Amino acid sequence: MKVHLIMGSKSDQKVADKAVEMLEKFGVDYRVDVASAHRTPDRLKEIVEKSDADVFIGIAGLSAALPGAIAAHTTKPVIGVPVSGKVNLDAILSIVQMPPGIPVAAVGLDRGENAALLAVEILSLKYGELEDKLKEYREEMRRKAIGEVDVRS
Amino acid sequence: MKVHLIMGSKSDQKVADKAVEMLEKFGVDYRVDVASAHRTPDRLKEIVEKSDADVFIGIAGLSAALPGAIAAHTTKPVIGVPVSGKVNLDAILSIVQMPPGIPVAAVGLDRGENAALLAVEILSLKYGELEDKLKEYREEMRRKAIGEVDVRS
Amino acid sequence: MKVHLIMGSKSDQKVADKAVEMLEKFGVDYRVDVASAHRTPDRLKEIVEKSDADVFIGIAGLSAALPGAIAAHTTKPVIGVPVSGKVNLDAILSIVQMPPGIPVAAVGLDRGENAALLAVEILSLKYGELEDKLKEYREEMRRKAIGEVDVRS
Amino acid sequence: MKVHLIMGSKSDQKVADKAVEMLEKFGVDYRVDVASAHRTPDRLKEIVEKSDADVFIGIAGLSAALPGAIAAHTTKPVIGVPVSGKVNLDAILSIVQMPPGIPVAAVGLDRGENAALLAVEILSLKYGELEDKLKEYREEMRRKAIGEVDVRS
Amino acid sequence: MKVHLIMGSKSDQKVADKAVEMLEKFGVDYRVDVASAHRTPDRLKEIVEKSDADVFIGIAGLSAALPGAIAAHTTKPVIGVPVSGKVNLDAILSIVQMPPGIPVAAVGLDRGENAALLAVEILSLKYGELEDKLKEYREEMRRKAIGEVDVRS
Amino acid sequence: MKVHLIMGSKSDQKVADKAVEMLEKFGVDYRVDVASAHRTPDRLKEIVEKSDADVFIGIAGLSAALPGAIAAHTTKPVIGVPVSGKVNLDAILSIVQMPPGIPVAAVGLDRGENAALLAVEILSLKYGELEDKLKEYREEMRRKAIGEVDVRS
Amino acid sequence: MKVHLIMGSKSDQKVADKAVEMLEKFGVDYRVDVASAHRTPDRLKEIVEKSDADVFIGIAGLSAALPGAIAAHTTKPVIGVPVSGKVNLDAILSIVQMPPGIPVAAVGLDRGENAALLAVEILSLKYGELEDKLKEYREEMRRKAIGEVDVRS
Amino acid sequence: MKVHLIMGSKSDQKVADKAVEMLEKFGVDYRVDVASAHRTPDRLKEIVEKSDADVFIGIAGLSAALPGAIAAHTTKPVIGVPVSGKVNLDAILSIVQMPPGIPVAAVGLDRGENAALLAVEILSLKYGELEDKLKEYREEMRRKAIGEVDVRS
Repeated sequence: MKVHLIMGSKSDQKVADKAVEMLEKFGVDYRVDVASAHRTPDRLKEIVEKSDADVFIGIAGLSAALPGAIAAHTTKPVIGVPVSGKVNLDAILSIVQMPPGIPVAAVGLDRGENAALLAVEILSLKYGELEDKLKEYREEMRRKAIGEVDVRS
Repeated sequence: MKVHLIMGSKSDQKVADKAVEMLEKFGVDYRVDVASAHRTPDRLKEIVEKSDADVFIGIAGLSAALPGAIAAHTTKPVIGVPVSGKVNLDAILSIVQMPPGIPVAAVGLDRGENAALLAVEILSLKYGELEDKLKEYREEMRRKAIGEVDVRS
Repeated sequence: MKVHLIMGSKSDQKVADKAVEMLEKFGVDYRVDVASAHRTPDRLKEIVEKSDADVFIGIAGLSAALPGAIAAHTTKPVIGVPVSGKVNLDAILSIVQMPPGIPVAAVGLDRGENAALLAVEILSLKYGELEDKLKEYREEMRRKAIGEVDVRS
Repeated sequence: MKVHLIMGSKSDQKVADKAVEMLEKFGVDYRVDVASAHRTPDRLKEIVEKSDADVFIGIAGLSAALPGAIAAHTTKPVIGVPVSGKVNLDAILSIVQMPPGIPVAAVGLDRGENAALLAVEILSLKYGELEDKLKEYREEMRRKAIGEVDVRS
Repeated sequence: MKVHLIMGSKSDQKVADKAVEMLEKFGVDYRVDVASAHRTPDRLKEIVEKSDADVFIGIAGLSAALPGAIAAHTTKPVIGVPVSGKVNLDAILSIVQMPPGIPVAAVGLDRGENAALLAVEILSLKYGELEDKLKEYREEMRRKAIGEVDVRS
Repeated sequence: MKVHLIMGSKSDQKVADKAVEMLEKFGVDYRVDVASAHRTPDRLKEIVEKSDADVFIGIAGLSAALPGAIAAHTTKPVIGVPVSGKVNLDAILSIVQMPPGIPVAAVGLDRGENAALLAVEILSLKYGELEDKLKEYREEMRRKAIGEVDVRS
Repeated sequence: MKVHLIMGSKSDQKVADKAVEMLEKFGVDYRVDVASAHRTPDRLKEIVEKSDADVFIGIAGLSAALPGAIAAHTTKPVIGVPVSGKVNLDAILSIVQMPPGIPVAAVGLDRGENAALLAVEILSLKYGELEDKLKEYREEMRRKAIGEVDVRS
Repeated sequence: MKVHLIMGSKSDQKVADKAVEMLEKFGVDYRVDVASAHRTPDRLKEIVEKSDADVFIGIAGLSAALPGAIAAHTTKPVIGVPVSGKVNLDAILSIVQMPPGIPVAAVGLDRGENAALLAVEILSLKYGELEDKLKEYREEMRRKAIGEVDVRS
């Protein structure tokens, strides 16, 4: 397994699905767990410490402590995805404003797909074949964007 | 020991001091530790689980996961104090916006004294003598406030 | 009665219901009143001063003065629940940012269930039997969270 | 007495001074009290109910419940002045976002002088001589503003 | 006419309606105009300067310059009502944060009814009969609030 | 005169100076006035209507109505510069969030120099010689930026 | 072509349509492209550098880098339109808070029509016939606003 | 070279220094450049495209487009560091809220040291010897944190 995706609660599933879809597109092994920094801290610790993942993705809303709690138990890169709710700044700031010494890589609100892409970029340092796939994906995006061109004059 | 005060870093000392001063005023036993949800999660868990405190106070800034992390390891009441910095909404929202199931009692920014007072109010349920002291303290505050009166007309 | 739940207006009922459901789950005596810090301040004062509750829960939105107004008339612990609306930061900050001397224990936006759980945690200091129930509840949450696990790889 | 100025704490004095200076400029009778919605609610109630003021000004920071608490005890117009601190949105929103039925007239952060001017405008409905003074003050402001003109070309 | 209600655009009608309903309840003469600080500044000036109103109410959203623009042309009290939209803090801050010398009395977001009540409170200084009506209204609110009481235990 | 710079108060001078310095660098005729949308609305109207400027720059803080008020009296492009204070979002949102029909071109907080540059860009459509000067300025900036390069490895 | 409208993604179409409708009303030549500062930076550069437009309009949401990226490749005036989403302050601040030296003219959230009007105002410096059309448009708006007048008393 | 650090302006030096110090502690090769997404976009592109770095770090304040602009020209991981200023939410949101397809790994405000640590974590996938150094660093932090313990009771 290369990417270990952990969401704080089942309600974060939609955001996790965006990440999973992207990881499958790149053919990257992954595993999805539900574990909460607050409700199941010991289980979270065990999951993280036993994991042989190269990269972790933590998905959580509200006072989104999950990505930071994952980072507390590993020195592997941890990507954090804030999940939208009634306030939004809560999850964004909780994930971005980590204290010195324990970094988390925050991506945008509900941006599961970007978390997966960032994970693939990170993995491409070790697994060279992903580098080409990333370039193809960029090219594909580029072509799609150009196809979208709408000229009126 | 009745109140266990944990701050996320030595830089939170000033806010902790306000709490300590208030606890001493009420003659309440306490202990102060520095433990980080992110840098020393196992130590934090151990401190919380071994503690015989009736109430915990967690003091932290930024993505202030500490009070929530304490609450994850105990069913005793946990009071959270957000510490001011460059953003402020980060620590406030991180502490207030706890997910369902794991409550934290948030007090105001840098309000160590209020965390201590809230702890004393909670303790007064069990230790009846604190009830009178709280009433005296209120009365004292009231008298001081009236003494402050500045009449001009 | 152990917990006195006061909401600022009937429109806060849904949030109060979450608290009530949780208190009933724990078999804790409670009473629900509607009283406004602004529209019925004298009645609020009377309700609070006559109450024999161990803990108060104040539920209010907008410029949510209710929890602070309850705290002004008692030295029992007061838990404040901000209710969501068009701005949200208004109720959150009104409840969190209490001045020195009069603490309120703020929980998250619309988090009636957490207010109740915090009340139970506080009551468990005095009523020992609640301690076991809290641990069972945590265990139940933990089991449910694990049951939620969704492994794909 | 025409204007009753109440500040939540002595720390709000500077903002109160701006109001006092303006009221004296207009020769309007006033009285200044320190009373807190949270620390001395009964005293606040008594002060408001016994007052024969035409207009109230409440000055407070943080979770600024004071103006709303004054309004709860009178049907006279109440002007609220939020006092700056570490968050600012807390006092502004606490004073502006009053619930239906109990209005408060919010002026800007630390704007004691505007609270006084608004009070004078309100009083001018009853005390006609203030109307001319207000027009003179406007004219004076206008002249000063024109005198400020700085032409470079 | 006693109250002159001006809204910045027809889209603010719903908020104006709340004010109108309240003014009619109190039997206060009023007039409603649509005039924009930005689209029809000369007309706005003319409306304000020709008006014999005792109090103005300005209702506007976004960069809500209307209440301030009314205040610029009169020394009568001006009440400002921010109208909700996609940002909300824009209209609230635009109306609250008036510069020194030109006060506006801000009420809460979409709080047309409170603007009207504040206007009635102001008018009651001059038209004594409104004072009793205000006290009756408070009493009515109080009774309704008590009737709402929902006791469960 | 090509650019008419109007600031809401003398306290905005520092931000105006940044604009003036830039306009002088480009040799663009300008004039600076102090006029307030709130304190001297008639004078502001007269200044704007009599002006033969191609572009206006309005500089103001707080509830920064000035740029919008200028735009209300002209169909020339109006650039708005929010001035920093205790809240900052107030001036930014007041200037950016203009209603449909009356545009203002907002630049960043205290960004007098950018207001001037934008004015020069706009003027370059009519006064071709400015186009080359703008390109030179860009080149100069570019060279300075490269000169700044700090290589360590 | 006079106005070059570039949107960051097809999802910004609705906001672009408001701009297009306004440009057509004024008979101003324009062109619409979809190009992303992040997904197709080279294409964006090429589009901007090859464009003979007098004014650019960049429309984008989230971390709305597009208008700034257009401005980086031209010294023509660039107007930026923030597009609404889950946070809104992100796009507004990303477009407004440009660094010194590279100005962008920000208009309000989703205000495509204002971006077009601002473009027409800018173009009117070079194409005199637009000046009259702008005055007619203002007059038309004025008449419509007066027609909207709703008098009740 | 393994890490390529690019700051938007010399004024970001202090934040860059924190990153450099950390990279040197880990003995990781790096290079520092100053290049602006807005003032020198072509140079930025060239620097990024010619770079053989494994990881990029972009440091910028205000409308912090730099990290996103780096990411637009590479499929290597890009870490973004928002730099504090008068608003702070501007740089944070500009860096976090990247659109789908082009991820940036945001760290906290002014957190140069965390950007470097995250870079080292990422590099440790490829350069195994960094893994042990990271664990040592954690251990060192842990020991220091425990040494900080301040027990009073």
